[in-house]
Amino acid sequence: MMYQNLSRAQLLDLKNELTAEYEKYKAAGLKLDMSRGRPGKAQLDIALDILDDKSCVSPSGFDCRNYGILDGLPELKEVLAEAMRVPAANIFIGENASLALMYASISFAMLFGIGGSKPWGKYEKVKFLCPVPGYDRHFAICEEMGIEMINISTNENGPDMDTIEKMVAEDETIKGIWCVPKYSNPTGITYSDETVKRFAALKPAAKDFRIFWDNAYCIHELYPDNPAQLLNLYDECVKNGTEDMPYIFFSTSKITFAGGGVAAVAMSSANLAEFKKHMGVRTIGADKMNQLRHLNFLKANGGFDSIMRKHADLLRPRFEAVLDILDAELADTGIATWIRPAGGYFISFDTLPGCAKKVVAACRDLGVVLTGAGATYPYGRDPKDSNIRIAPSSPSAEELAQATKVLCLCTKLASVDALLETAE
Amino acid sequence: MMYQNLSRAQLLDLKNELTAEYEKYKAAGLKLDMSRGRPGKAQLDIALDILDDKSCVSPSGFDCRNYGILDGLPELKEVLAEAMRVPAANIFIGENASLALMYASISFAMLFGIGGSKPWGKYEKVKFLCPVPGYDRHFAICEEMGIEMINISTNENGPDMDTIEKMVAEDETIKGIWCVPKYSNPTGITYSDETVKRFAALKPAAKDFRIFWDNAYCIHELYPDNPAQLLNLYDECVKNGTEDMPYIFFSTSKITFAGGGVAAVAMSSANLAEFKKHMGVRTIGADKMNQLRHLNFLKANGGFDSIMRKHADLLRPRFEAVLDILDAELADTGIATWIRPAGGYFISFDTLPGCAKKVVAACRDLGVVLTGAGATYPYGRDPKDSNIRIAPSSPSAEELAQATKVLCLCTKLASVDALLETAE
Repeated sequence: MMYQNLSRAQLLDLKNELTAEYEKYKAAGLKLDMSRGRPGKAQLDIALDILDDKSCVSPSGFDCRNYGILDGLPELKEVLAEAMRVPAANIFIGENASLALMYASISFAMLFGIGGSKPWGKYEKVKFLCPVPGYDRHFAICEEMGIEMINISTNENGPDMDTIEKMVAEDETIKGIWCVPKYSNPTGITYSDETVKRFAALKPAAKDFRIFWDNAYCIHELYPDNPAQLLNLYDECVKNGTEDMPYIFFSTSKITFAGGGVAAVAMSSANLAEFKKHMGVRTIGADKMNQLRHLNFLKANGGFDSIMRKHADLLRPRFEAVLDILDAELADTGIATWIRPAGGYFISFDTLPGCAKKVVAACRDLGVVLTGAGATYPYGRDPKDSNIRIAPSSPSAEELAQATKVLCLCTKLASVDALLETAE
Repeated sequence: MMYQNLSRAQLLDLKNELTAEYEKYKAAGLKLDMSRGRPGKAQLDIALDILDDKSCVSPSGFDCRNYGILDGLPELKEVLAEAMRVPAANIFIGENASLALMYASISFAMLFGIGGSKPWGKYEKVKFLCPVPGYDRHFAICEEMGIEMINISTNENGPDMDTIEKMVAEDETIKGIWCVPKYSNPTGITYSDETVKRFAALKPAAKDFRIFWDNAYCIHELYPDNPAQLLNLYDECVKNGTEDMPYIFFSTSKITFAGGGVAAVAMSSANLAEFKKHMGVRTIGADKMNQLRHLNFLKANGGFDSIMRKHADLLRPRFEAVLDILDAELADTGIATWIRPAGGYFISFDTLPGCAKKVVAACRDLGVVLTGAGATYPYGRDPKDSNIRIAPSSPSAEELAQATKVLCLCTKLASVDALLETAE
């Protein structure tokens, strides 16, 4: 039933029906949260063996309790390199949050510049390109730093490379771009080979232009036997002689413990030398005990694959619970679109223009918390007010089914209201 | 035997004798390190029970494996508050390094200003006062940020408050001062009550002037039954209405694991709100699993006291080994002075002017590594070239005795050379 084909009278009937349903949910007093990409308890239990580890000494004989080793245990770099697909020597292991490594990279650029260039903080204006919809915490860093953000549209192959190529070539104040290249947050798409090749071949006017390649979901498959294939940006950059362009971020937050994992960044030798110089002023080194625990746990599991399959088994039914309800409730209504992701942590859901805020507010009224509408856009401003990010990882499949029914109901109600405004 | 009273001939005889001894040591091929305040293995073993802890859930029911709790576990704040002597509500728990919290505070001030003031990075010049000798890693932060450092002399009561009061009142570009108020790095002195009171009563021209109160050794006694008494700066500031002035730093690096402890900073509610706003952009939260381990370990030990007594028992003989040799070899020679610290991690040693670099180089030649001469001064420039920082925590008492004999020998040799230059 295409809502757009309904008459005013039919819309009013439908509204009455939906409102009655709304009141029923209201009376039920639900408490459900699909707002953040937070792993569920069963996922956290996958890595429980980490806590059995009482070792203090690394394979090369370093007492991890003591000061030292700024850039992280070399043995752990070797293991992370498998997932990050970069040479171990190009990795810096940080604390628990890749976000903090992104923040550090940008802070250093703001304060000191990159490779001898003018500090970004000394410019009148510095700009970042932001493929949208995207990750709110990326945008928050730019906003705090006073970096102007420019929306770049995205399709199933990744961001609009024509626009990106043109803009970075012309504007020396464009210093960076945020990318989540695989199972993107929130759209779930994976950049095509051509997109990655074009990134590696960018010819930015700014020598200190950097690609912030947040590969947060690089091994986070829902269907491990049929993974999306992301071309290796680092290899492509090496071929193009542009290996100073990318900073490649990774963490085990959604592999071991969300708040107690290890994060890492990979960069060219020149970038890494500069990054280490700055980090060495800030700290003597991250917590290597946690690095050692992770090393032993990952080695005991033969790397990442078997661990990630356990995550997939827990996440897949949750994603499917949401998608099944969306299909059943909204297919052929013409009032919403969504993508079926094959990995990552999110389902990106689009309402009719102008409805997302109302839908999120109505859901909240019924006890279902979603990521704030607009959060997936710079400055929290979704120009169409249509994108909603669904995070299905934490609730149970049953809770998700119920929460998604509420989402569908609120979407229908908001759509009927929007259509009534224009219906004859 | 006062070296200054020796004739040229006597000095030459002495030089021959010392040179023979030097050659003997050289042949011995020592490998000893008194350069950094790194705990020894036995100290790290004090906290081994931390590794037995497999709990994941905080007393208030939070699963510490997951995302969340930006400012740290409230229950751990309560325990840290005992040592930090500040209200638990004013504490922010960071990662493993208090240095990183200092770096963060200064980065935020450089990038964003404090309390609505102009970002420090927007000034032509910003200055910090640096009581000397002091901690090289403090100075390195200022140097990297381009903050001009001004030496402030120190005596047994702390830094020269007359000069500090005058300078901060007159110069709006003086934005901070580095202090290690108890068992200072490297001098081992503890600020007098009057010094602390005068700090709390400072009337800086800059509203965004901050005292960086690095209370790294606040409970690090060598003689726990006779601890130095440091007046509580935070309380004094509250009395004076200047509680926005201090940032008070603390860590368990020298209580549990040097590289795997927890660090914290305490500040006024206004400062804390601002600090949390910035930190919240950088990270979702530090590793709370390590916070939980620390909470349980500290509670199981009834707080800090029994743990710190174990450290004292390990450190005291090491300090005494060094001090005994210094007394035996150099008392009444007139060529060196040092302080007998009652806590902390260092012995500050002063040679005749112009000798420190030569002494450190000669020691290194004999296989004894000391902190680089000059490191205890901003820009690595000790105007008198006389201060050497001795870090006796890590080697055994026997190794320390041997290393200190080498230090004494090299000091004598350099002194004889210096005196020969002026002797008749």
